[in-house]
Amino acid sequence: MIDYQAILNTIYANVTQESDKGEIATYIPELSGVDPNRFGMHLKLISGEEFAVGDSEVGFSIQSISKVLTLAMAMSQVGSTIWERMDVEPSGNPFNHLSLLELEEGIPRNPLINSGAIVIADILVTQLKNPKADFLKYVQDITGDSSISYNLKVAQSEKETGFNNYAAANLLKSFDNLHNSVDDVLDFYFHQCSLEMSCSQIAKAFFMFANKGVCLRDVGRLTKTQAKRINAIMLTCGFYDEAGEFAFEVGLPGKSGVGGGIAASLPHEFSISVWAPGLNPQGNSKLGMLALEQFTTLTKQSIF
Amino acid sequence: MIDYQAILNTIYANVTQESDKGEIATYIPELSGVDPNRFGMHLKLISGEEFAVGDSEVGFSIQSISKVLTLAMAMSQVGSTIWERMDVEPSGNPFNHLSLLELEEGIPRNPLINSGAIVIADILVTQLKNPKADFLKYVQDITGDSSISYNLKVAQSEKETGFNNYAAANLLKSFDNLHNSVDDVLDFYFHQCSLEMSCSQIAKAFFMFANKGVCLRDVGRLTKTQAKRINAIMLTCGFYDEAGEFAFEVGLPGKSGVGGGIAASLPHEFSISVWAPGLNPQGNSKLGMLALEQFTTLTKQSIF
Amino acid sequence: MIDYQAILNTIYANVTQESDKGEIATYIPELSGVDPNRFGMHLKLISGEEFAVGDSEVGFSIQSISKVLTLAMAMSQVGSTIWERMDVEPSGNPFNHLSLLELEEGIPRNPLINSGAIVIADILVTQLKNPKADFLKYVQDITGDSSISYNLKVAQSEKETGFNNYAAANLLKSFDNLHNSVDDVLDFYFHQCSLEMSCSQIAKAFFMFANKGVCLRDVGRLTKTQAKRINAIMLTCGFYDEAGEFAFEVGLPGKSGVGGGIAASLPHEFSISVWAPGLNPQGNSKLGMLALEQFTTLTKQSIF
Amino acid sequence: MIDYQAILNTIYANVTQESDKGEIATYIPELSGVDPNRFGMHLKLISGEEFAVGDSEVGFSIQSISKVLTLAMAMSQVGSTIWERMDVEPSGNPFNHLSLLELEEGIPRNPLINSGAIVIADILVTQLKNPKADFLKYVQDITGDSSISYNLKVAQSEKETGFNNYAAANLLKSFDNLHNSVDDVLDFYFHQCSLEMSCSQIAKAFFMFANKGVCLRDVGRLTKTQAKRINAIMLTCGFYDEAGEFAFEVGLPGKSGVGGGIAASLPHEFSISVWAPGLNPQGNSKLGMLALEQFTTLTKQSIF
Repeated sequence: MIDYQAILNTIYANVTQESDKGEIATYIPELSGVDPNRFGMHLKLISGEEFAVGDSEVGFSIQSISKVLTLAMAMSQVGSTIWERMDVEPSGNPFNHLSLLELEEGIPRNPLINSGAIVIADILVTQLKNPKADFLKYVQDITGDSSISYNLKVAQSEKETGFNNYAAANLLKSFDNLHNSVDDVLDFYFHQCSLEMSCSQIAKAFFMFANKGVCLRDVGRLTKTQAKRINAIMLTCGFYDEAGEFAFEVGLPGKSGVGGGIAASLPHEFSISVWAPGLNPQGNSKLGMLALEQFTTLTKQSIF
Repeated sequence: MIDYQAILNTIYANVTQESDKGEIATYIPELSGVDPNRFGMHLKLISGEEFAVGDSEVGFSIQSISKVLTLAMAMSQVGSTIWERMDVEPSGNPFNHLSLLELEEGIPRNPLINSGAIVIADILVTQLKNPKADFLKYVQDITGDSSISYNLKVAQSEKETGFNNYAAANLLKSFDNLHNSVDDVLDFYFHQCSLEMSCSQIAKAFFMFANKGVCLRDVGRLTKTQAKRINAIMLTCGFYDEAGEFAFEVGLPGKSGVGGGIAASLPHEFSISVWAPGLNPQGNSKLGMLALEQFTTLTKQSIF
Repeated sequence: MIDYQAILNTIYANVTQESDKGEIATYIPELSGVDPNRFGMHLKLISGEEFAVGDSEVGFSIQSISKVLTLAMAMSQVGSTIWERMDVEPSGNPFNHLSLLELEEGIPRNPLINSGAIVIADILVTQLKNPKADFLKYVQDITGDSSISYNLKVAQSEKETGFNNYAAANLLKSFDNLHNSVDDVLDFYFHQCSLEMSCSQIAKAFFMFANKGVCLRDVGRLTKTQAKRINAIMLTCGFYDEAGEFAFEVGLPGKSGVGGGIAASLPHEFSISVWAPGLNPQGNSKLGMLALEQFTTLTKQSIF
Repeated sequence: MIDYQAILNTIYANVTQESDKGEIATYIPELSGVDPNRFGMHLKLISGEEFAVGDSEVGFSIQSISKVLTLAMAMSQVGSTIWERMDVEPSGNPFNHLSLLELEEGIPRNPLINSGAIVIADILVTQLKNPKADFLKYVQDITGDSSISYNLKVAQSEKETGFNNYAAANLLKSFDNLHNSVDDVLDFYFHQCSLEMSCSQIAKAFFMFANKGVCLRDVGRLTKTQAKRINAIMLTCGFYDEAGEFAFEVGLPGKSGVGGGIAASLPHEFSISVWAPGLNPQGNSKLGMLALEQFTTLTKQSIF
């Protein structure tokens, strides 16, 4: 029997005394105001048991972690037709992602880079009656937590400064790979990224990826194959230019966000979420990476 | 003495019997409706003499030819500070121009590719009280022809379909190389491209580049150095991926537009304009290129 | 208890009746002469048990599979200093791999693309007294099979036609990331790729990746961490532009070769090898991919 | 009447007192030993008159200037079939020239970048009985000066360190755009670059480009069209990433070399050559550029 609580406590003790906590993202004011000393972690086993430490109930901006949730919702809605509009391969450096998109004629490399997530947003805008409300309802449903909400200030901030995303969306449109208007799609996209969730809520949302596609509640169920697909995508594409490093150091399918969150799953075992706002130079949570590395080392549980 | 009128007549006879007239641009409805058999040419000597043939008085959409006029106006307004925001080097293939812009961190290669022209538009939007009205007035003034106007349908069409330009403008904005809003700049840009001018009017507008920067009318005067700079840019960057070919075949500084127009100058000698709506695969007027090649061959006047 | 032999038999029955067996690599004569109907598979459990089907004892050209073996040998010799000279991230499209190498100033993206494997070869040429003989001895030792040998005709063929590898090696050299002469390094590299091994021998060689770094014989032992590192690299970088697809379809760390072989491991469980000479358009064994997909489906054993 | 000698004297006085003379190329020892205070200039009018100043009779390594001479010889031998194997368009940044070559599938952008010049070398190796001897004879013939020779130490140095050129040649070979062996072609190429010529000799060699293709001696005559083609290529492609700048500042078709030489022509007027070993950051002779700029300003003779 693994004493998960003791392990989380050890990790907490270790990482909170790190002097270099990384750099808070400052590109929008709402993110830059976060306390760099925040640290939380939440573990949810397939058995239903939960363990937590630190600020695990404090909401933060999940940002790119939302891309996994929109992908899951889109797959539950339209299935594998998604892959007619994007690929599932790693993308390499994000600094030249528009070059890649232009070179590959508007076909994003995978659904977890911005251009791919924008196409997923476009699919949901087409499919859903009230896209923003319906997606929020979906996240509330799969977590069983109706308190989850968008942070409208964050969404507005990104709308005013997200020029690179506007560039990507317009480039997609120029290649006929965006069916709705750029403004409608990005309005949805900026809202999804602005979702505020706690580690506890995120671990619940990611439970389905550990549980063969079956969510906590009877909604949004994925097939086993779809859950496997999403895990494979997270493993190869979830960490920008650190996918290989994360696969090695942590050994879990996962996804990071610029708000300092990381969510991951070990199929058939658990989902887990960590939050520490400071980022490493690659844009992933510095202490979050460290915490997950220690977790898989101490529990001896990883895909390897 | 060269008999220019006889030469124009010969060219007219030659090119109008070409069976392959190239392909009309169809990406906006207003352009696609043009009669492919149109052909006009207008020559204006430094001495003041003018010669013309064919549809030289019929207005057409000057499109990218306008980039030379906004460049001239911007240089007359802000001088060489322009070059803090863009370069003056050829750009190679246009198919990957966003890649280049991303790689070079938002600095356009030259003012005659779209991204560079958008920065020029941004400069004018900052400088001018009523950008669209003031630029139109400038074009009317340097040609002495107040009948010149925008084609609002064409401008509107491009606003609705110019996603690649929106992508470029947003990418510039993400690199802080656009000072006004994307919408304001592109509204101006789409209007400048929609200008309707005849060969006769264009030749008058380009007179200053042949005449050491001095316009027909006492407005918008450039310095000798500025006129030389613009001629050098047209020579090396004026024909997308055919700059080298045009320099060889024609041997004049010039600029083409997707509406089928080409404008050129021979410093100290003349300005010239030709119009034939069908394009070659590189996007330059097929018969226009042929006509100018014959003109420099028959007159033995070129930079070489 | 899983009946592995029955499962291998089922797979054999399934894949050998596929009408589309893919395309044999033809770029060197020695590879093009292989019988497209060959199919073999070999499984080696951590317990020591082995199972096989078809042509599992027939030697074939392992080609890029050798990159994992040179990587393992180099790690056992010089440890993590390897990573001063290359990265561990996926590379995307192989068609522009020199562009990537040029853009990233001579630092290969990972040790399993050609440029990375050439740097590994350079490291071994520096480390080993008799590089070709010593590496062959290493492969014989870790498999306990002294019959393994290079195919000198294949090595010679590649030396005469491997211009792209010469380009890569010279580009590395121009960035000071090759310490020995291009000829010495590529002579070694073409020999390693020419190794002839059977599925049975390959499964034995890959046993260490499943067995925490401990080889069958007491040679070339890796640390647990090194074995994990290699598994992580295979998972994210082992299949050119199909890494994401393979992670999903098969869910094992692995490496393919243009000779039609694929080797893979499931940490703590087994190593496995398959051979079918016909390739899919991405350059991976068509029936080999199918066989491994069926294997992980039927055994329910994969990293997910 | 222009007093050319007085102008050359003025330029000499101006540029030799510049404190910042640029940086000598140091990548091969033979180039790095050159005296940075060297400065020479030679002008040859169509009329036959010659004017000179400074070290105009001192030989130096012409390096890339040789690319224009091999191009001229290849055109005189095989005519326009050259263009089946390369393009005539500007190339932009040289730092990623292999990327461009890979992207465009082995078709160099023009004959004045390294990859294009290597294809020209390949053509001459195919055409000539004794390539190195025959090309040297050609240069001696068109200048009427049998004292011109290769610098074998320079050629040998480049052979030992020119890894980027080996990379380019092998990449060309991998795309079947090199018909002879890499070693044979580069041996020729490194010799052509090692030619030692004085400003006086270079101006004589470039006389044909000013003189409608007719050389000083009755050898190697080009057609008028061929001379025009080469002038157009020099104008748009002769100065790496400074082609646009040179067209503006100087306004002459020309070509620079890393040895500090620049050769140029004004069609129907003159050929001119300048030498000053220090380079600007773009790799062109710093004082050479300045001298030519002053020359066209003071004589008021340029293509504009």
